[in-house]
Amino acid sequence: MTIKDCELGKDVKIIEPVNMYECKLGDNCFVGPFVEIQKNVIIGESTRIQSHSFICEGVTIGNHCFIGHGTMFTNDLFDSPNIESWIMRKTIVGNNVRIGSNVTILPIAIGDNVIIGAGAVVTKDVSAGCVIAGNPAKIIRKIED
Amino acid sequence: MTIKDCELGKDVKIIEPVNMYECKLGDNCFVGPFVEIQKNVIIGESTRIQSHSFICEGVTIGNHCFIGHGTMFTNDLFDSPNIESWIMRKTIVGNNVRIGSNVTILPIAIGDNVIIGAGAVVTKDVSAGCVIAGNPAKIIRKIED
Amino acid sequence: MTIKDCELGKDVKIIEPVNMYECKLGDNCFVGPFVEIQKNVIIGESTRIQSHSFICEGVTIGNHCFIGHGTMFTNDLFDSPNIESWIMRKTIVGNNVRIGSNVTILPIAIGDNVIIGAGAVVTKDVSAGCVIAGNPAKIIRKIED
Repeated sequence: MTIKDCELGKDVKIIEPVNMYECKLGDNCFVGPFVEIQKNVIIGESTRIQSHSFICEGVTIGNHCFIGHGTMFTNDLFDSPNIESWIMRKTIVGNNVRIGSNVTILPIAIGDNVIIGAGAVVTKDVSAGCVIAGNPAKIIRKIED
Repeated sequence: MTIKDCELGKDVKIIEPVNMYECKLGDNCFVGPFVEIQKNVIIGESTRIQSHSFICEGVTIGNHCFIGHGTMFTNDLFDSPNIESWIMRKTIVGNNVRIGSNVTILPIAIGDNVIIGAGAVVTKDVSAGCVIAGNPAKIIRKIED
Repeated sequence: MTIKDCELGKDVKIIEPVNMYECKLGDNCFVGPFVEIQKNVIIGESTRIQSHSFICEGVTIGNHCFIGHGTMFTNDLFDSPNIESWIMRKTIVGNNVRIGSNVTILPIAIGDNVIIGAGAVVTKDVSAGCVIAGNPAKIIRKIED
């Protein structure tokens, strides 16, 4: 139930309990209950972080995104010899991205206007305008312009 | 840690912290910690909502069900032009349904006496008496009468 | 936000809110927010239980493990006639095991030095030194000695 040393834009709405520290959120963002957002995370304007999500250090999210309930970002590929020596990997999410509930996101780059189906496990970079789903997630269609 | 404007039956047990508002639960229900239940959700009698679950607006659950830990219901198929214009989809869960942990449920109908394996992503309606699992979930057997 | 009747080793760090009762944690463990750990769970030394995880009765975890965010353990195979008559199944996790985020673990045995990829659904025993991923999880490689 902590909001510590965060830089919050105008009209940010947060439903407690949350655990947020040393992160930055743009104007009009929403954060649901049971969310953790770690240090150095940057989130753009009008983005919604739904309940039960975890946004780890190393993640940057754009404007006007929807991060579904129970979305878990990651920053460790378990490629170090032990848990103390882990190497932080980064994830970038573009603008107007919609992520379904219970999605797992490995450290990757996601372009603008992407849709990720609920329950997907995203293991590779995703190009702008793609709709993906599954474990591991695959492209199921492209959004028509 | 809010329980607001809920209609709770007799002997409902709730483990805080939870976030529940404008929902209705029948007699003898159990709600574990870190659960969110949104407005207009209706849950029957003697149903257990385990920890970390999210029950969104548009969901109706029957009697004597087990909703496993980390189950995420959904009500948005991301088929609108943007996040503001989303269309609410409904989900109906029958009686005596058992849902495993970390299950994701798209807006569908689930019949009576269904069992859903842990980690499943349920994308289609499920007939009564079926046992399903996987991503996307498929029928693995039928319960013998 | 309860820590009740737990046996905690030296230098255990817990980030509230959590729900922990009648469990035992070794020295130097870490428990993140929004975690539930049930009665009779035993966790070794220097193990990290990350946010949003659920560790149920019947689970034993070794030393120096990393249990990723949103990991759900289970102890019920839904093989009883109804939810009241459930049979508790056990899970044993060895030492130096790393489990990714949003992983679901059926009641099984996991050997030492195992790595489980994020989003995996683990349905069978896992031998020491294996790297597994997917739903259902399969061996993708073995760790070289």
